[in-house]
This record gives sequence, structure tokens and C-alpha cells, in this order.
Amino acid sequence: MESIGDFQSLAPRLIDLSADFRLHSAERYQHWYAGEHSRPDLLGTFVYGVPELHRDALRSATQVACAGCNATASILAVRPLARRGLVDSIVIDVKAGSSEGGNVSSGASHHPERSGAVRSYRPTGHRHVGEIEQSLGDIPIHFSATSIEMVRGILATCHVFISESLDEKAVWKIYREDYGNEPFVRIVKERSGIHRYPEPKLLAGTNYCDIGFERDTATDRLVVISAIDNLMKGSAGQAVQCFNIMHGLIETMGLEFPGLHPV
Amino acid sequence: MESIGDFQSLAPRLIDLSADFRLHSAERYQHWYAGEHSRPDLLGTFVYGVPELHRDALRSATQVACAGCNATASILAVRPLARRGLVDSIVIDVKAGSSEGGNVSSGASHHPERSGAVRSYRPTGHRHVGEIEQSLGDIPIHFSATSIEMVRGILATCHVFISESLDEKAVWKIYREDYGNEPFVRIVKERSGIHRYPEPKLLAGTNYCDIGFERDTATDRLVVISAIDNLMKGSAGQAVQCFNIMHGLIETMGLEFPGLHPV
Amino acid sequence: MESIGDFQSLAPRLIDLSADFRLHSAERYQHWYAGEHSRPDLLGTFVYGVPELHRDALRSATQVACAGCNATASILAVRPLARRGLVDSIVIDVKAGSSEGGNVSSGASHHPERSGAVRSYRPTGHRHVGEIEQSLGDIPIHFSATSIEMVRGILATCHVFISESLDEKAVWKIYREDYGNEPFVRIVKERSGIHRYPEPKLLAGTNYCDIGFERDTATDRLVVISAIDNLMKGSAGQAVQCFNIMHGLIETMGLEFPGLHPV
Amino acid sequence: MESIGDFQSLAPRLIDLSADFRLHSAERYQHWYAGEHSRPDLLGTFVYGVPELHRDALRSATQVACAGCNATASILAVRPLARRGLVDSIVIDVKAGSSEGGNVSSGASHHPERSGAVRSYRPTGHRHVGEIEQSLGDIPIHFSATSIEMVRGILATCHVFISESLDEKAVWKIYREDYGNEPFVRIVKERSGIHRYPEPKLLAGTNYCDIGFERDTATDRLVVISAIDNLMKGSAGQAVQCFNIMHGLIETMGLEFPGLHPV
Repeated sequence: MESIGDFQSLAPRLIDLSADFRLHSAERYQHWYAGEHSRPDLLGTFVYGVPELHRDALRSATQVACAGCNATASILAVRPLARRGLVDSIVIDVKAGSSEGGNVSSGASHHPERSGAVRSYRPTGHRHVGEIEQSLGDIPIHFSATSIEMVRGILATCHVFISESLDEKAVWKIYREDYGNEPFVRIVKERSGIHRYPEPKLLAGTNYCDIGFERDTATDRLVVISAIDNLMKGSAGQAVQCFNIMHGLIETMGLEFPGLHPV
Repeated sequence: MESIGDFQSLAPRLIDLSADFRLHSAERYQHWYAGEHSRPDLLGTFVYGVPELHRDALRSATQVACAGCNATASILAVRPLARRGLVDSIVIDVKAGSSEGGNVSSGASHHPERSGAVRSYRPTGHRHVGEIEQSLGDIPIHFSATSIEMVRGILATCHVFISESLDEKAVWKIYREDYGNEPFVRIVKERSGIHRYPEPKLLAGTNYCDIGFERDTATDRLVVISAIDNLMKGSAGQAVQCFNIMHGLIETMGLEFPGLHPV
Repeated sequence: MESIGDFQSLAPRLIDLSADFRLHSAERYQHWYAGEHSRPDLLGTFVYGVPELHRDALRSATQVACAGCNATASILAVRPLARRGLVDSIVIDVKAGSSEGGNVSSGASHHPERSGAVRSYRPTGHRHVGEIEQSLGDIPIHFSATSIEMVRGILATCHVFISESLDEKAVWKIYREDYGNEPFVRIVKERSGIHRYPEPKLLAGTNYCDIGFERDTATDRLVVISAIDNLMKGSAGQAVQCFNIMHGLIETMGLEFPGLHPV
Repeated sequence: MESIGDFQSLAPRLIDLSADFRLHSAERYQHWYAGEHSRPDLLGTFVYGVPELHRDALRSATQVACAGCNATASILAVRPLARRGLVDSIVIDVKAGSSEGGNVSSGASHHPERSGAVRSYRPTGHRHVGEIEQSLGDIPIHFSATSIEMVRGILATCHVFISESLDEKAVWKIYREDYGNEPFVRIVKERSGIHRYPEPKLLAGTNYCDIGFERDTATDRLVVISAIDNLMKGSAGQAVQCFNIMHGLIETMGLEFPGLHPV
């Protein structure tokens, strides 16, 4: 945000991968980032870069704030239910790879320490909750993230407490309505076999967000599971997708990689 | 359960690692195991093999039903709060290693498929919920398990919705009261550094259950995190611990391994 | 080889991924595969499917026997030296991933056993030696393979004992002469940084064979290191490359994936 | 070596884990460490801390220079053959874990880079060759080391070119003669099953050096394979073993951990 003036003078269109302009209010920013925003005048002028939510706005956008990786996985998983008013509360339990921590080494990223770790790196207070709340509306959101043995990838297990009795068929219908035409969202749900739910390792290098779900028939819980590559749909890939939309290009251009298996 | 009569005639004391006699009612068994119990007359005659809950009963027990691995991690994490009536509901999100699946190879355990997997193997309906409910009492329990890249180990992230406003100090007090004298339960909670919360990789080969927690100050959520080695405290190690108690031996005998680091 | 007659009657061009027609003599086959060849009349009628060696023959070939994965990595590493008569003997030490073992699960591929393994699966007598000898000529070849924690990938460390005093510049010249125009062979050799030598993990999904080397100045040893994805350049990818050549298509078609980093 | 005078004045017995006093000549030190030794007067006054070679000297030693990890694995693998004059030359190909690199993080140890790496970190010129030569005598030794996905552990694949025609029975006899009474050297060699050769992952936390071999019947090569935990038999564990011997204690004291399986 310190340099945004320079960038604005240099380029007619900006796609920001940082977290600086994702939130639309200075209060929300202050709350989640524990510091004052230096350019509150610009808050709200960036389109939040999740095409599935804001494709129309992106077409004419000149400034885009790309979504956080955990936020992208969480929002895409729960939004279809939330925007229909079906959600009472959510517990989002994210499993994340080491590339989420950035490219600077530290004691925590030192291989003998990080290898095989199952590390509760942010049980409460994760900053991405600010973005998730902003996109899902006024719902209690409980978020925890755990680092696991993986380089790329996020699996978000979303325990959604629903306000209506939805059966699996009804859930299918909702997700198909919202994502049936989306080039990068796939519903993954099989009754048998190894790949019954989304699996981030198969998405490495791709821009897909795979979403699956399972209804807990005994309770009001619906488990929605989403997987992405945090460096693609969770970051640079989604930025390219936004770029394509902003420039009227084919949306999937440069993002055609289908992934590898086995890997 | 088919062979229990034979075992009873052969040995004066039985320690059962299977799930057959963990539950105390035929209805509960039928519900979670989708089949009729062949020896309902024996249900309730086995002591549930978690020493922290049933040490006194174990001293004179002749039949012990060892707890499931996910159940052990979950129960030890939440019991101090639950038995004080402080819990409204729980979402337990377990991360588990491949040794949980047993020693028989399958397509799902084939290394090219299983390596690096983040697999929602039981989003709802996990059988260990029966044991957890039985030990924690009448609380809504929502359980999901995800297989991750790990051979030994369980991390249970327990999102506990509490009925009273407890601060961290009060939580510390409760766990110290219950586990202060326990040889195999440790409270792991640091403000800084790499190892702020329980970490299953450091517990491989040990009989410890490490428990940590973090209070979400904005909501009624307390995140309690527990880690065990599923083959030790989650299975054979806990069985040895029960054996030691049943025979009046030193409880920690044979279970002194402190773990390795780094690993 | 049992079904080759059927295949010949069905298709004008055959690309065989099996090992049946790689060797050109029945004796050599008998030696390495410990069984008689059922169609010795066809031995020698298949072009060995390594384009860098047999591109011209592939252009008009109707039958191609694709090379083994370890053989491909070894042959491409050492051929430039061997065909110039510079090699006295070679020790090839291959590190391989679990996908080399095929897609059928077994006790050896069961994740708790295979994970983290460093398994000498074939210290002597590996069948691919037959192919390597056939391609490199009459040189003593000593081959061992070790399975390591990896799904895709081969690293071949070739300890080449050379008959002439070659400095690094001379080695560079030789490899550039042979591979300077090859679309899928790259020379990887840096003086500093993390990526000084070929690294199979960066090649997952690609058809590249990366080759590096280091001269042991104190002895007659030149260490040549090659890396491939065993499922691509070591198998299906190289088959597609052969297919493209056989059909007069652009050789790199369908094989453009550049790989992922980090991964 | 800068502080050795201080240490000598502080303690009657010194066990040095550094590489400073392993080599016995200033020339050898200069050659392998590319710098002058600051205390050449002390070279040769330290016993080289491999009990299987120097147990008697260790009993009365006051200064011990513990062996390097790769050197320990290599020396124990080949010494029985070398000291009998049976070796013409050796190629040692070591696979090593990330803990060999020490406990300080760097770009090379950053988890996204190091995870899954198969990195030729020292194809030629590894410093441990100095120690190996010193212990094995005047034999051409060719050494390369590759970092693989592992935290603890070394597998040394030693391609030994032998000067006499030894069959497997003769090799067995030699290794049994030398190691039959050794508490920490085991011969691991099975004709079938998963664990036919030494496997470092099973040795994590133990002080064992497991040694296996396979005779290449077609050539003069004998493949000897050794595995250790680099932090135990390759470092601190062997130091404790030396300590026990120096002090007349039971040699295995504190080193009884048998290892874990599966892991």
C-alpha cells in the first residue's frame, strides 16, 4: 500500500497479490492486520479477485485485489450455501502446504523441522477470516489452519451447520446451479474408489478448485470439502484468470494444465 | 467377539484391541457398526481402556476394551471440559497417518496413490464417534477425519464451543487439575518458537498424549489440540499401560521412550 | 510378445511399452529375462525408442520398442562418451520413485512400509542392463538401483571411468555436440545455488532428460548425473515423442509441459 | 581446534564431534579442508572414534575424534574386505537425509525446495573421503553423495571391486569374523521379503550400523550396503559408545533403543 501511488501512475490496470486492498473497510483492516491502513481512501476501490463471485465487475475493473489462498478455498466451498441464507455457522479446518509460508527460509521452514510436521500454525485469529467474512456475510466463522507435509496445496474441510434440512440431492442442485458453467470449479464426489473427495495433490499446477461434500444425516452438519493449489487458484493462477477476464481474453488461457497423476 | 469365549477360557485377564467390546449397549453398537453384536451379554463387562478415565476400575479389571486411536486423542482432549459441563458442542477434525489403515495393502494404500495424499476418508459417520459420545456424555459431537502424509500419528483439532466464558488461565487450571499427575499426558503450549502446540511427529514411538489449546477471544470457541502416536497411546502402548495397571506394576514400565527429534 | 501377431494385424504402426522387443538377440533376452523368447523371429525388427539415438530410423519405423526408464536415463547420460570410445567402465547408481513398481499394490508398496524407504531393490542383475549394454557397446557396466521416497522420478548417478584425460571444457563440448539441438535433453550445471545438478522433482510431468556432470580432478572419474520423470521420458512421454517422429508431426507436440516449481 | 587448549585444561577426557582432529597429517587436512590446521602438533594424538576399529585404543584414550557420518557408514561397510587386501577400488554412493546439513536453515534447506529433492550435493571432493582413505588404506576411493527425502539416515551403496573371486559364503564368513561380536553392527541379508537389505528408516534413533551385500556374479563387483542413523552411529550415538568404552562402562548403555517399525 505504500507504493500503490507509484504503481497506479505506471500501469492502467493493477492486479495486487498482497493482502492490502482485499478488505473494504479500514476498521476491518485494523482488526485483522493489527495496524492502520495507510491508504484508507482506496479501500473498496479494488475488485476482490475471485471470478466466480465478481466476474462482471472484473470485466471493467482497473484494480483487482487477489484473494488469499485459504480464503479462496473457503469462500468457494461455502458461498453457494451462504448466499442462499442456509448457513447458521461454519467451522473451517484448513490443511496447508509449506509453500504458503513464502519463499524465505526460517527455523520453522528448515527441512528437518518442517518435514512431516502437523503443525497448528494458526488455531485462531487467521487474517484470512476477514476476507471470508466479507464474502460470506454475517455468519459466525470459526477458522483454524494446520500445516502438513505438502509443498503445494490446501484442503479446506468446512463443517457447515445449516439452517434447513437439505438432502444430498438439494446440495448437488445448489452447487450445480452456481458452478455448472464455471471453468475452474469442479464437483468431486464419488460413492466408491480412492478419489471420492477433492484431493489437493492432484491439483498441483492447475487452477482448479475441486469441491465435494457429505451430509451428516444425524445432525445439521454438512461437510463441504474444497481443494486448490495455493500457488495457482490460491494466488498466481487466479491472478491470471482475473487478467484474462479484465482484458477480454479467453478466461482459461495459460491455465489449461490438467494436473498429474500419480504424483 | 466370535472367539471371546475361547479367550476367556484361556486367560484370566483379557486386553482386547478390537472395537468389539468398547461400546456398552447393543443399540449403540448396532448404530455405529451396522450389524448385530453376537455377544450382547458381555457388553458393559469390559473396562474401557483409557487409564486417565478409568484407572481405578482398571486395577481390578479382568477384561479391558482398549480405546480406538481417534477416540483416545479426542476424549483426552475434551474430557476435562465435558465432565465439568462446559461444552455445548464439538467439531473434531482429525489428521491421521497411513498406519491407521492397518497392515494389509490395498489400492488406497499403494504408495503412488497414498503418498502426499490429503484424503477425506471419513467426513461423517466415523465409528469412533460412538466411543467418544459414550465417554464425553450427551454433547453434540461432529467428527471428520483426513488422512495425510504421515505413517504414525494423529492430530485432533477440537473446536470446542463452550458454555461459559473461560479465559486461558481458567483452561490451564482445568487441564492441570485433571492431568497434572498423569504420566502420559502433557500440556504443550508455548507463546513463541516452532513447537507451540502438540506435534505428532515428535511422539512417534512414545505413549504420550500431548494437549494444547488456544482461546478464540472473539467467540465462544476454544481450540483444543491433541497429538498421539496411534500405534502407541492409540493402541498397543495404551494396552501396555492398562496391563501395567491391571497387574500392579509401575504404570510407565516399557513405555519410557521419550521420542526423537529431529525426525 | 504372445499377442504381437494380433497387434500387427490390427495396426500399421506399433509402439510397444513392454520390454519384449527391446533386446535384439534371443541370447541376450534369455540372459536378462531368464526365459525363452516366444517370437525370436521378430527380435531386431523393432527400432529401440530413444529418439536421440535413432531418430532417423524412427521416421520410417513401423514397430518401436520403447526403452526402459532406468535405461533411458543411463544411456542418455553416458552415450556421448561411450560412442567416442572414451569410457573404460561405468558404475550406474540409480535412485528411483515408487511409480517404477507399477500400479498394482503389494506389501512392498504398502504406504507404511514404502514411505521413507531407502530400499536397495536391485543391487545387481537389473534387467535394464541388457538394454544399456546394447546401446553403449562393449563396456563393463555395473548397475544398482535404490528406491527412495518419491513417486515419479529417476536420478542416475553415473560414475564414468574415462580412458582419456578430459577437462570440463572438453566434456561440455561433447555434450553440446550431441545434445545441442535436442528438444528434450538439457545440460544442467551451475557453479552455485541450489540447483547445480539435475533434479528429478522439477521434471515431474515433463519429457526432459536433464544431464549434468562433475569431473573428479584427482582421478579418472567423471560423474555424469541424469534425471527424468520415469513415466514421461522414461515411458509414455518418450512413446509420444516416438509417435510424433514416426508420423512426421512436430516432435514436441503434447510434450510442452515445462514442469512445476516449487513442488 | 581454536579452542582445544581451553577444553584440554577443563576436562581430563575430550570427545570431539567436529572434523578437526580426525585426520592424522597436516597435509591430508590441508588437502581436504583447503586450509591450514592451527594445531598440527595435536594431529595424531586423538583416537579415531570408531569402536569397531579402535576399541582397545579407546579404552585408555583421553582424546577421541568422532568419525564423520558418511565415513562411519563407508568404513564399516568396506573395512573387513579392505584390511584383508581384497579390494582393488571402490565407488561409494551415499544417500543422505537433511539433518546431515546441520540445524541452521538456509535457502537449500527451505522445505519447499528441500522436500522431495534428489540433490547431488557432493558428486566429487567430499571431505569425508579423507577419513575413509585413512581408515581403509591405499585404495582408490570414489565417493558421491546425494541428498534425498529423509531427515535422519544414510544408506551407503558401496560398489567394491574385489581382487579375488569371493563367493557369498566367503563374504559372509569375513563379515561374521569381524562383526560377529559387535553390539552395534548387524548383517542384514534376506533372500525374500521387503527387508532384504539395510534400511535406514528402521534405524532412526538407534546406534546400529546394518550391513548387507550382494555379489554380482558376472563381474568382479561386490555391492556392500550399509545403513545408519547419521545422528546416532554417525555422530552423537557413536560418541556415547566411545564414552562408555573410555570409562569402562557397559558399551551399549544409553544406546538400547531398538528402533520403530512401521515408521
